[in-house]
Amino acid sequence: MAVQASRVLFETRRMLAQLFRVKNPNNIIFTHNTTQALNMAIKGILKSGDYVVATMIEHNSVRRPLEYLMRTLDIQVDYIGVNDQGELDMQQLEACLSKNPKLVVCSHSSNLLGSILPIQRIGELARSSGAVFLVDAAQSAGVLDIDVESCCIDMLAFPGHKGLLGPQGTGGLYLSPEIELEPLIHGGTGSQSEEKEMPSVRPDRYEAGTLNTVGIAGLRAGVEYVLKETPQRIYQHEWALTQMMIEGLKELSGLKLLGPVQGKERTGIVAFTIEGRDSTEIAFRLDRQYGIAVRAGMHCTPLAHYAVRTDKTGAVRASVGANSTEQEVQRMVEAMRELVR
Amino acid sequence: MAVQASRVLFETRRMLAQLFRVKNPNNIIFTHNTTQALNMAIKGILKSGDYVVATMIEHNSVRRPLEYLMRTLDIQVDYIGVNDQGELDMQQLEACLSKNPKLVVCSHSSNLLGSILPIQRIGELARSSGAVFLVDAAQSAGVLDIDVESCCIDMLAFPGHKGLLGPQGTGGLYLSPEIELEPLIHGGTGSQSEEKEMPSVRPDRYEAGTLNTVGIAGLRAGVEYVLKETPQRIYQHEWALTQMMIEGLKELSGLKLLGPVQGKERTGIVAFTIEGRDSTEIAFRLDRQYGIAVRAGMHCTPLAHYAVRTDKTGAVRASVGANSTEQEVQRMVEAMRELVR
Repeated sequence: MAVQASRVLFETRRMLAQLFRVKNPNNIIFTHNTTQALNMAIKGILKSGDYVVATMIEHNSVRRPLEYLMRTLDIQVDYIGVNDQGELDMQQLEACLSKNPKLVVCSHSSNLLGSILPIQRIGELARSSGAVFLVDAAQSAGVLDIDVESCCIDMLAFPGHKGLLGPQGTGGLYLSPEIELEPLIHGGTGSQSEEKEMPSVRPDRYEAGTLNTVGIAGLRAGVEYVLKETPQRIYQHEWALTQMMIEGLKELSGLKLLGPVQGKERTGIVAFTIEGRDSTEIAFRLDRQYGIAVRAGMHCTPLAHYAVRTDKTGAVRASVGANSTEQEVQRMVEAMRELVR
Repeated sequence: MAVQASRVLFETRRMLAQLFRVKNPNNIIFTHNTTQALNMAIKGILKSGDYVVATMIEHNSVRRPLEYLMRTLDIQVDYIGVNDQGELDMQQLEACLSKNPKLVVCSHSSNLLGSILPIQRIGELARSSGAVFLVDAAQSAGVLDIDVESCCIDMLAFPGHKGLLGPQGTGGLYLSPEIELEPLIHGGTGSQSEEKEMPSVRPDRYEAGTLNTVGIAGLRAGVEYVLKETPQRIYQHEWALTQMMIEGLKELSGLKLLGPVQGKERTGIVAFTIEGRDSTEIAFRLDRQYGIAVRAGMHCTPLAHYAVRTDKTGAVRASVGANSTEQEVQRMVEAMRELVR
């Protein structure tokens, strides 16, 4: 039984390695969620006085660990700005990279705007500057192509339960073989258990305690599906649906769409505000009257809200996934048409 | 759907609070496993130079975080000794408590020996000395009676997947309302998301990121069963089975039982060595020839192995649970009789 359980873990690691073009599956570390992976990466790499370059679209799972280290370890952080469409200010980025950062961290795609950052270009720039490059793939794993080698990614944090179609309680961190972290969590690993210190062997060093094996078995099924379907096809499907939703919503009176304009690349998120209407009221009505689940209010990404001036109002965020359909998008558009009327 | 998910979390918290006699369910924090809960407690409470009292039966999930803090924050730790039966040296404990510890941490029951520490007495002594008292209930939650008030417990770490009969990937920490920790993990909480710092409200402050909601739903079913069946009855059942196993194993030639002698209180663990036989060979044969799963070798508790002189040999550990039967114990005893012959 224990061997079978190990096999589930290993096969899932192998598939994730295939998906992200990681050579050695043992460099894939399982975590409880993306937040734990990001905390492991950020707190494990930074030392007192380090300088960090991040962006305004970061989720609180990046910002709050950074703010904690600013308070306790005196690190410095610059958050690179984005425009109304969620596009990164590359000039500001290059200026900051010249200040010798230890770490560059960026979200692959904004969880509020759906905009996609050019991680390959950012990765190349980060590497030339000598920085470690950490990518938060919370919105992109399973949907956008991610090649850790060609994108110069040293650490990649990803969730199991979003684009990889696994259950909640799963996620992980890819860690380059060239990077060693102080583990976030110390404890039993079942290996070298007589030692006071964590073993150096991966993944054991970063996986103390009992893993969510049954959840990871679910994740394996999800990644298997993604590999078969391919992120490219899933992305095309989601993109077509977001365009259909934008087409339907854009003419509604008082409705303001956030993020990339129609026709541009984006992940499966369409967020908007309606003048004079509270976003939580819209979400409540969509749920009760139409059985449509959206998220309202603030989206754990305060600087992105600030960048698109929704920090006072919040926003309604609709999203589509690999199994969403045109009919569902039509229902959403019709519901919004009625609600706006 | 989100409200239903919140309800699952709340009901599980409420049942856990009932089980451990916690007044406010929001002081129950969900974690990935016991190891994460122990790391949160230990790293969240200790500051540079603090003195800690622990015991020789601690699991690596306590020892390794402590050793890490000895290395990085210059904390001091004494591990109180145990005798051959896994009983704590109370005189040594009292002597160490007079040295003004910040934290007293002890395992409720040894994962190698099955011995049960007198946590109520230890808790009273810890409180009189002004120390914070942390109990590792990895082997006892759901099986031994735990009353955080009468045992003076300030923090209680517990697994979801052992005596509480939930799935792997669940666990938690009870945190007294009088204790504030620096969170181990910083990130999004869905609350006060415009703030740079973690919110102060519980459980949000200590539960950044997506929870294992489906796993916690499974845990809810487990805790419901435990509450109905009562830990007292489950313990009596397990105790009767361990006594039956000890009775059957004790006469086998060369077999040496570890932990409390026959007739004494113990949790559902029976560990042993066989002179001249490798523990992993015994485990392998039990699995292949008899379909019986035990654990062999080292058990992530090096000081306990040292205390009972199995640090060179390891040990075979058999265990029984709430649903184990007399027939299964008989099969185990007969299998061992054949293997020893």
